[in-house]
Amino acid sequence: MARVVVAVMPKPEILDPQGKAVQGALPRLGFTGVTDVRQGKRFEIEIDGEVTDAVIAEVEKMAETLLSNPVIENYTVSVEGQQ
Amino acid sequence: MARVVVAVMPKPEILDPQGKAVQGALPRLGFTGVTDVRQGKRFEIEIDGEVTDAVIAEVEKMAETLLSNPVIENYTVSVEGQQ
Repeated sequence: MARVVVAVMPKPEILDPQGKAVQGALPRLGFTGVTDVRQGKRFEIEIDGEVTDAVIAEVEKMAETLLSNPVIENYTVSVEGQQ
Repeated sequence: MARVVVAVMPKPEILDPQGKAVQGALPRLGFTGVTDVRQGKRFEIEIDGEVTDAVIAEVEKMAETLLSNPVIENYTVSVEGQQ
């Protein structure tokens, strides 16, 4: 069992209204010093067996076809822990 | 400038319909070997200045009061890069 994490974030040139809403709320709550907030998605995928390069390639394909919209989002795939 | 990342995930005992929908779609798309999928949120917070322990404590407070619902979600705070 191992966990692979896919992080999906809006591309830098894409407006991010959720992130902007958070950023706007922070000063009202007394938090300062934050210059930007971007909000995206995080998927924790539990893999049966070992995480090989082939598995990573499969997860990259999942990220591209199902988990993200490549027109407006970037994704990164990382292995979090082998058990 | 530095980036602090807050990951917000549904607690293990909480049902996660979004994650289940992704998990259900994977075999239909030809992906096998995935035993569980959980979907959460990821916030990338750009901090003005250096990330000190005080800044981390501030971000933890943000995560608890604004970015997550502590009843149903867990969060983790990590520093991604100092520039």
